[in-house]
Amino acid sequence: MSVKIHTQFGFTCKQPTSALLQFEVASLPEQDVLSARCDITDTAHFARIAAQDNIGERIWLNAEGQVRVEYEAEVAPHRQLCPLDTLDALLPHDLPGETVQYLMDSRYCRADEFQSLVEAEFSGTEGGARIAAIRDWISDHFDYVPGSSNATTTATDSFVKRQGICRDYAHVLVTLARASTIPARYVACYAPGVDPQDFHAIAQVFLADPEGTGGTWQPVDATGMADLANAALIGVGRDAADVSFVTSFGAMQFDYSKIAVNTCD
Amino acid sequence: MSVKIHTQFGFTCKQPTSALLQFEVASLPEQDVLSARCDITDTAHFARIAAQDNIGERIWLNAEGQVRVEYEAEVAPHRQLCPLDTLDALLPHDLPGETVQYLMDSRYCRADEFQSLVEAEFSGTEGGARIAAIRDWISDHFDYVPGSSNATTTATDSFVKRQGICRDYAHVLVTLARASTIPARYVACYAPGVDPQDFHAIAQVFLADPEGTGGTWQPVDATGMADLANAALIGVGRDAADVSFVTSFGAMQFDYSKIAVNTCD
Amino acid sequence: MSVKIHTQFGFTCKQPTSALLQFEVASLPEQDVLSARCDITDTAHFARIAAQDNIGERIWLNAEGQVRVEYEAEVAPHRQLCPLDTLDALLPHDLPGETVQYLMDSRYCRADEFQSLVEAEFSGTEGGARIAAIRDWISDHFDYVPGSSNATTTATDSFVKRQGICRDYAHVLVTLARASTIPARYVACYAPGVDPQDFHAIAQVFLADPEGTGGTWQPVDATGMADLANAALIGVGRDAADVSFVTSFGAMQFDYSKIAVNTCD
Amino acid sequence: MSVKIHTQFGFTCKQPTSALLQFEVASLPEQDVLSARCDITDTAHFARIAAQDNIGERIWLNAEGQVRVEYEAEVAPHRQLCPLDTLDALLPHDLPGETVQYLMDSRYCRADEFQSLVEAEFSGTEGGARIAAIRDWISDHFDYVPGSSNATTTATDSFVKRQGICRDYAHVLVTLARASTIPARYVACYAPGVDPQDFHAIAQVFLADPEGTGGTWQPVDATGMADLANAALIGVGRDAADVSFVTSFGAMQFDYSKIAVNTCD
Repeated sequence: MSVKIHTQFGFTCKQPTSALLQFEVASLPEQDVLSARCDITDTAHFARIAAQDNIGERIWLNAEGQVRVEYEAEVAPHRQLCPLDTLDALLPHDLPGETVQYLMDSRYCRADEFQSLVEAEFSGTEGGARIAAIRDWISDHFDYVPGSSNATTTATDSFVKRQGICRDYAHVLVTLARASTIPARYVACYAPGVDPQDFHAIAQVFLADPEGTGGTWQPVDATGMADLANAALIGVGRDAADVSFVTSFGAMQFDYSKIAVNTCD
Repeated sequence: MSVKIHTQFGFTCKQPTSALLQFEVASLPEQDVLSARCDITDTAHFARIAAQDNIGERIWLNAEGQVRVEYEAEVAPHRQLCPLDTLDALLPHDLPGETVQYLMDSRYCRADEFQSLVEAEFSGTEGGARIAAIRDWISDHFDYVPGSSNATTTATDSFVKRQGICRDYAHVLVTLARASTIPARYVACYAPGVDPQDFHAIAQVFLADPEGTGGTWQPVDATGMADLANAALIGVGRDAADVSFVTSFGAMQFDYSKIAVNTCD
Repeated sequence: MSVKIHTQFGFTCKQPTSALLQFEVASLPEQDVLSARCDITDTAHFARIAAQDNIGERIWLNAEGQVRVEYEAEVAPHRQLCPLDTLDALLPHDLPGETVQYLMDSRYCRADEFQSLVEAEFSGTEGGARIAAIRDWISDHFDYVPGSSNATTTATDSFVKRQGICRDYAHVLVTLARASTIPARYVACYAPGVDPQDFHAIAQVFLADPEGTGGTWQPVDATGMADLANAALIGVGRDAADVSFVTSFGAMQFDYSKIAVNTCD
Repeated sequence: MSVKIHTQFGFTCKQPTSALLQFEVASLPEQDVLSARCDITDTAHFARIAAQDNIGERIWLNAEGQVRVEYEAEVAPHRQLCPLDTLDALLPHDLPGETVQYLMDSRYCRADEFQSLVEAEFSGTEGGARIAAIRDWISDHFDYVPGSSNATTTATDSFVKRQGICRDYAHVLVTLARASTIPARYVACYAPGVDPQDFHAIAQVFLADPEGTGGTWQPVDATGMADLANAALIGVGRDAADVSFVTSFGAMQFDYSKIAVNTCD
């Protein structure tokens, strides 16, 4: 089975402005990019660089005036999903050094504030079972309400408001995982099943490999909407600040976005 | 010339608690560690891992009861300092991919909010001259007041309060640099000249190499206290959340710290 | 001269929800309400109560389904404006007790953080001249950008972002006035000259009466758009949290608003 | 039975600084002040004004150098406590106008964010029973940890951290009450039973009078420490920002405080 993606978005900068784009499906062992085509309005500069953790690429533009992006890709994910509650946590001192940054507080995820809370609310669970319990708690207590959050909303805000969109669900899960001493990163993706269809956000948590030979990043979707086996990953970061589809270093007006994600046999 | 460091600190965990320590001088081309000795109370676990950007090491402990740390080292820094205002910025699209994370918002540094402000306050300056202007502005407008900030104080808080300690000065400089599209990271160090002597914090900004062969990280101290040529770097991160000398994943009571830094010929 | 106001807005509550409305022009010595007509969709409850400081009225509704409000009024303001910089401050211990609450921090106005900043930026000015200096500073440094703020934006946020709408301009002025130990309150009004026409927000500051017989509340508009002599005041509060045109105690969907304000001879 | 109070505190201002003090027991129908004596270092100004809601008094000083305050009082509280869960809420539109400000968001109590949460967590309860449920929930889920909060800690911060002191317990209760459309104010008091003895903070909520003749303010202590029948009230406000024992409008260094509260037959 493959997933076809069609992405369109546009923005306008009145002054020449550096912008960083990340919207293309990453080439990864767990997903083959069968084809991809990307059209971007000509701009003064254009450069591709490896994105966070070498997953996917970022594109630098120097934008002036209207910029329009159109992207079409076909991807074949062949991701093996493990039942989360069968996976152990690694002891903190066994974590690979490069995963430790994903235990730290970030822009939207102030995890240290939640240490007492996770021990009280999720005591008796560990590792993958803890993550499953957190995911189910969020799913039970939150309402998916488009428009209920904005670019400054933190996981703490969402936690008390009990509303949000995929970005907020992912932030809360990442935060509660880190507060449980389990590395967690934010993942931008395209996923079948998301309604309304848009860029989607999930989390990955670092748990012991089922074979006991180290650790692996496991996907989790607190919204429950995404078909995780067939999600097409774009990139990862500490939180949404790292993997926005467009990050502007100056005044920018967002014009539109339109995303289509379809599976085909 | 060499720098002798003597560090002592202690903390207590009533329950077994994972703690991450980072207090040792990093081995780097710009500073030779001539000798080092580290005594830590025996704990259930002990592991060393590479720290952020492979600069220095973090130590994992599983702490229970009192933990005491004593560290002595002698370091010979041989850092070449360039006058900041002679250094150009790299164009964003020429930045190495791994520096881009240091343009992003982090826990304490919400740089995107400051984009208009830096253009208004520091217009007419670029690159190293911009950084020098920011450093001087902070130095002119801030008072160094021990006790005026705490572990939740952000760069935004400090910016309006115009008070803080080295941590806060570094956060504000990092934030205004990132808002100027110049990568900036937070640096923990030991530095001669700091009064009262304590763990010190400075920033590094990524600017064009004077030889024009790429970019380099340049140290900046908005407090003006540190002898930067002879500072002994411990580690780096997006902000203070990444390079605390002790990060606890559970309840921890801090007991004491005592730092001595002396130069000898 | 009189001012004609035509206000229309609507909102929808799926569940029965208590809502507090404040949109009518207040009856005040400085403005005569010549005529007023108010049509509101029938709701389960309806009660009028005096609003903050007995200025204007609030309306309680128990809303279910669509609520539509239409209001027409003609008002004759006859407000005497004093040049701000001719007015002295009252010494704090001479302030009437009821004005002291307007020195305190509120939801959107964390004034205490700005005490050092106002002394540094506006030193050499006092009383009305201090307020005029603050007003002019905001006017010079801020851009009026509809959509650049939201219901959670604080004066601190706006101060660093240097953008906002009338609400944000008023919050920053109120905050810097309080940090200068001058009582300041937030004022909702209808004002000729506002573009785009909408509910408008200004501030009032408490300064010595020109006759030296106590103190008076003086209007200030940091946006510079409003014709203050002819503004029709609705109500006052510590900040926008107190005088929203609709405050909902449960889920509410805002549908539309349309405001017209015209002067006639 | 009477309560004897002995209060001592001191602070230092290097520059002449306006300071507002509120530490004396209020004269109220529910508590007779049998005797009171107050010694304050001579300062350039001294004025008493009625405090918030005419409960107690505030003292203005113009402080320079060391200020020392000593206060002794004997108070006879004769407060009738009703079991909270026997009291109904007033319908919002039956609330007296002057109580409505205590439904609004304030500096430390952003109640609107918690509307969904209170409906989910405390559904099935109303009025006094809702308040009792909130009080018991806080008591069950929070740890009283001196030093775990500071002057910038909000109810939202405390809610996720699940730690705090009396100030934080009161803020969370006030916030969850307002989110339930029940007016709630913050109360500074001296209370027997508090350990360690200090200025204490409780909340008051506005509920229907048991005789059905309107509403009354009922005391609630989420910490469970205070003997509410014998607490001696100092003053009220929207939150701690309004009733600090010392509020400084300029740089101030706090030196010490010592509080003794004893009951005698």
